[in-house]
Amino acid sequence: MSKRATLKTFLSLITVLSLFSTTLFAESLKSIAKRRGLSDKDLIAAAKTYTPTGKKDEYLVFSSGGQSGHLIVYGVPSMRLLKYIAVFTPEPWQGYGYGEIEGMHRLKEGEIRGRKITWGDTHHPALSETKGDYNGDYVFINDKANPRVAVIDLNTFETVQIVKNPIFKSEHGSAVVTPNTEYVLEGAQYPAPYENKYVALTQENFNKVYRGGMTYWKFDKKKGRIDLKRSFTVELPPYMQDITDAGKSISYGWSFTNSVNTERYIGGYGNGNTKLKNRLANEAGMSEKDTDYMHIINWKKAEELFKKGKFKKTNGMPVISMKDMVAANALVLLPESKSPHGCSVSPDGRYIIVAGKLDTHATVFDFKKIKALIDAKNYASKDAYGIPVLDMKKTIHKQVQLGLGPLHTQFDKEKGIVYTSLYVDSSVARWNYLEGKLIEKLPIHYNIGHLITAEGDTVNPDGKYLIALNKLAIDRFNQVGPLHPQNHQLIDITAKKPMQLLYDMPLPLGEPHYAQMIKADKLHPKIRYKKKSFKHYVRPGQEKVERSGKSVTIHSTAIRSHYSPEVIEVRKGDQITWHITNVERAQDQVHGFGLDTYNIHGSIEPGETVTFEFVADKRGVFPFYCTEFCSALHLEMTGYFLVK
Amino acid sequence: MSKRATLKTFLSLITVLSLFSTTLFAESLKSIAKRRGLSDKDLIAAAKTYTPTGKKDEYLVFSSGGQSGHLIVYGVPSMRLLKYIAVFTPEPWQGYGYGEIEGMHRLKEGEIRGRKITWGDTHHPALSETKGDYNGDYVFINDKANPRVAVIDLNTFETVQIVKNPIFKSEHGSAVVTPNTEYVLEGAQYPAPYENKYVALTQENFNKVYRGGMTYWKFDKKKGRIDLKRSFTVELPPYMQDITDAGKSISYGWSFTNSVNTERYIGGYGNGNTKLKNRLANEAGMSEKDTDYMHIINWKKAEELFKKGKFKKTNGMPVISMKDMVAANALVLLPESKSPHGCSVSPDGRYIIVAGKLDTHATVFDFKKIKALIDAKNYASKDAYGIPVLDMKKTIHKQVQLGLGPLHTQFDKEKGIVYTSLYVDSSVARWNYLEGKLIEKLPIHYNIGHLITAEGDTVNPDGKYLIALNKLAIDRFNQVGPLHPQNHQLIDITAKKPMQLLYDMPLPLGEPHYAQMIKADKLHPKIRYKKKSFKHYVRPGQEKVERSGKSVTIHSTAIRSHYSPEVIEVRKGDQITWHITNVERAQDQVHGFGLDTYNIHGSIEPGETVTFEFVADKRGVFPFYCTEFCSALHLEMTGYFLVK
Repeated sequence: MSKRATLKTFLSLITVLSLFSTTLFAESLKSIAKRRGLSDKDLIAAAKTYTPTGKKDEYLVFSSGGQSGHLIVYGVPSMRLLKYIAVFTPEPWQGYGYGEIEGMHRLKEGEIRGRKITWGDTHHPALSETKGDYNGDYVFINDKANPRVAVIDLNTFETVQIVKNPIFKSEHGSAVVTPNTEYVLEGAQYPAPYENKYVALTQENFNKVYRGGMTYWKFDKKKGRIDLKRSFTVELPPYMQDITDAGKSISYGWSFTNSVNTERYIGGYGNGNTKLKNRLANEAGMSEKDTDYMHIINWKKAEELFKKGKFKKTNGMPVISMKDMVAANALVLLPESKSPHGCSVSPDGRYIIVAGKLDTHATVFDFKKIKALIDAKNYASKDAYGIPVLDMKKTIHKQVQLGLGPLHTQFDKEKGIVYTSLYVDSSVARWNYLEGKLIEKLPIHYNIGHLITAEGDTVNPDGKYLIALNKLAIDRFNQVGPLHPQNHQLIDITAKKPMQLLYDMPLPLGEPHYAQMIKADKLHPKIRYKKKSFKHYVRPGQEKVERSGKSVTIHSTAIRSHYSPEVIEVRKGDQITWHITNVERAQDQVHGFGLDTYNIHGSIEPGETVTFEFVADKRGVFPFYCTEFCSALHLEMTGYFLVK
Repeated sequence: MSKRATLKTFLSLITVLSLFSTTLFAESLKSIAKRRGLSDKDLIAAAKTYTPTGKKDEYLVFSSGGQSGHLIVYGVPSMRLLKYIAVFTPEPWQGYGYGEIEGMHRLKEGEIRGRKITWGDTHHPALSETKGDYNGDYVFINDKANPRVAVIDLNTFETVQIVKNPIFKSEHGSAVVTPNTEYVLEGAQYPAPYENKYVALTQENFNKVYRGGMTYWKFDKKKGRIDLKRSFTVELPPYMQDITDAGKSISYGWSFTNSVNTERYIGGYGNGNTKLKNRLANEAGMSEKDTDYMHIINWKKAEELFKKGKFKKTNGMPVISMKDMVAANALVLLPESKSPHGCSVSPDGRYIIVAGKLDTHATVFDFKKIKALIDAKNYASKDAYGIPVLDMKKTIHKQVQLGLGPLHTQFDKEKGIVYTSLYVDSSVARWNYLEGKLIEKLPIHYNIGHLITAEGDTVNPDGKYLIALNKLAIDRFNQVGPLHPQNHQLIDITAKKPMQLLYDMPLPLGEPHYAQMIKADKLHPKIRYKKKSFKHYVRPGQEKVERSGKSVTIHSTAIRSHYSPEVIEVRKGDQITWHITNVERAQDQVHGFGLDTYNIHGSIEPGETVTFEFVADKRGVFPFYCTEFCSALHLEMTGYFLVK
């Protein structure tokens, strides 16, 4: 046989063998699949999501934790939960709120009228942006229940600030950032008097004294903190302000906020103890009108008014009146379909997509048309507060029938392609908002609230993945009692192919509302702290215990596998300040610190100095120990704190 | 062509087509795998773990949550987290510790010396057992930091009791159940005086006054609660008691508890402010001897002594003295390899496998030999407290060299096969404890503490799956700041095949220690509550607000999408009792209840009545609302609580 023929035969043999091996592999895979009841489609989904040891995820999701008060981080496509960041709720693993002063200060910042608030209802995270794109520096999250906004530093994944809204009693359209993170927005929800006083709930009082509002929290990028002195609120009518989005590109400088209950219905269902009883339920009374109002605010002009001193302070918060806003042509109302819930600005800033829960359509508004009408002061009417109202028809680009209970919309990389959640339908609609055409619908399980696509609310959406943030799981997972986990479903939205459901992820704690999905390579978190970046950092050998009157200051170190010093004795009533430095250099070599009876717990990361403050008000012998399994001799990493 | 030949050709064609389709499918799978960097082995692992929408898991894992104070539930093989059950740490999503009286009472039960303790360091869950097998009724979990044990009802997946140990200041060998859940065991860890008083830390005091101990909490199966009046403690020397296991079958009636620091070293490393300073660190001082002691306790005899009144009470806890235990031949010590950590009784109850962190061997003790020596009172010596000590050599079945830092052992269905975690080696050893032969080792990532196999500590282990509960993740996942998630790794332990690593699961909150894996079909949780099973259940239409002096009682209902009544007005200083009944019948149709400023939050599951108690001590207008997204008109499920 010629060399060529030999080679040819050899190559054919290789091909056959390779095909044979592929077939063998497929057969073995199929026998596993058969045993587990998986279809070929399931195996494809598995291949698209399975992430073996050591392999990293392409995207990270920052999801609200709802009533858990946390912010949740998970990876895509693996859908593995990576961290519950403590925000409004004390959390011992992270040492947040258990004697360690940073966390204690944070929770103190969040106190309302002198009351410790130890939970939050986080709804909408907002990643910080530069030119409308996520920059990976910070993430903001709101508390609907006790109106507050928190700042989380993505360097450490820790909460570094909580600001409380001193005039709202409830909020919802938050956190939302402007395209360069100039401001973090916080919109009110259930109207109430700005002052912390009793005002009888009558229709007259409600109309005159109860108020909504939109707060613009100024973010100081250099300090990485909200600057309370440069923040202000725009007064709004007692409509229930809802979801907010910030304008970008051509709509830069504007913000858009849905509302519900422009009926100003004040409730009274059931046999209460006020004059308001046995009336229609809120759900009916608040849904009588066919349209509600989008609040269109020129925040650039509001900022000018604020800088000019055109405000009055209530509880320390500068409030710009509706009157002054209207006079500046900076506040306009736009009718939108009944009980709207979603309000999403397109990547190019031109379109605003609104979906009304009680309407089967999504409405695409054209900001160019809106802007022209506002510039020309071409208004159709005024509301009861003198705010100009636009002619809805003149502002619409398209209206598209999508299905029952449309809520939120996210954008694809593909021009014109968007995804809208359909709560009642339990499905996701893929449609073209430029052409006004529904493309396809994918059933989800069940009752989807928000949805997210990769970087889907920035100026540069990525497409690829969509996550349905479902409100009910019902029968999707093993039963774990009457309170079920939520169900986040990962969907492949590769362009031009039908959407494919890839993965169901149960949420073991809390009820997420909104989330954002960022490219993982935009994040650059710290893996350890730099030596000496802490004031009370001590090197091994420099540890000491100092007394000054009734104050005892302890400078400790922690390293595998001991604390230094190991035995400390104080007197009852002493004020203890205990600095502990983790002098490890290796990443992930965390030490914990738990102290019996005193309700003290901290997490001390490599290179970090953590300070605990407490009063030694109980006599006795109190063991302390490292709560992180840090070495084979971890059990021996302990000591005694004696109070005589 | 004959019919037969046609059929033959047809069948060959089918075979070729099917092979072709299989090959095509495999090629498409491989192209996805190539894009994602997955090997064939990865695809096999994916097929073994991937769980499509609606498919249930075969096993549920109950894992401690470490310093998070929770108990974690997840599914196997999907490795999806299903629930963080609130135990020692207040948790708002579940309404645990936020005004709802059940949770408030639970946390009140857990108070220590009048101090609210709002965290715990959960270590070892124990599923309730019947004849040494999980029965799916309850799970118990301990708090190492503030010695307590909690009872979780697997009907509701809620914490129903917390008992605190009034004489320990720290614990570790807990929770462990006896084979019929007669008792829940709790062993002390860091010795301290039983009384809550200061006792100077001197070697003399330590030896004489500081104590360890083993508490036997009596579990009343009918009531589903620990019966404090029938519980007792066995006094033990100030050795650091560690892991405990209960005997079964032939070792029924006995318990086995490791210890560390039989040196009774009292520490003093570093520049402290006591006479104990600049001494050896605990890790060195506590590791001088070559052996420590296993405490062998006949709890059946201890129970008899207790019933006969042979105890003295300290802080209300009946304590049986070492002396009385020795006199009854019910307390014996057995030398075990240096700094032991694991202590595991074989399914047949005959062998006890102990691994010492500082020894490369695992030791297999034979209870038959131990029992014969005890019955014959054939002791080698006594310790400083007069407790008889067995001759180690006479009790050993096998000693096997496994590797560095062996810790815990779990059992397989296959006779003689066990798995031991090797902390320092970062691997799992599969070996035969009857023959004393190491079979293979699998690397894990990284530094494994406990490990679990399916039902691997019962009388009927299942084999199949093993989970490595690793202490460090280091580079396994996307970075989320200096505090990393833990890494639980799922391993396929199918008999006679090499172990295969299947899945890495990050833990987003807390640091689990031990876990147990139960067949999912053994659990029968409630999916909704029965009507009228609550005292304050009200039907729609029966709602009311009643006043008696300064006490206001509100009987409310919640249903999609309103509360009844919606508006409630009280006076400042009123004592509020607010019963809310969720009158839904559909599973997963939960309503939340959040009240501004008052730090109130509850979760009201279908059919449940929940009661909140608080004082209306702040004037103003406070919106309340449903914190679960329960319907398209969920935002309207709100009302006002006014305080004048």
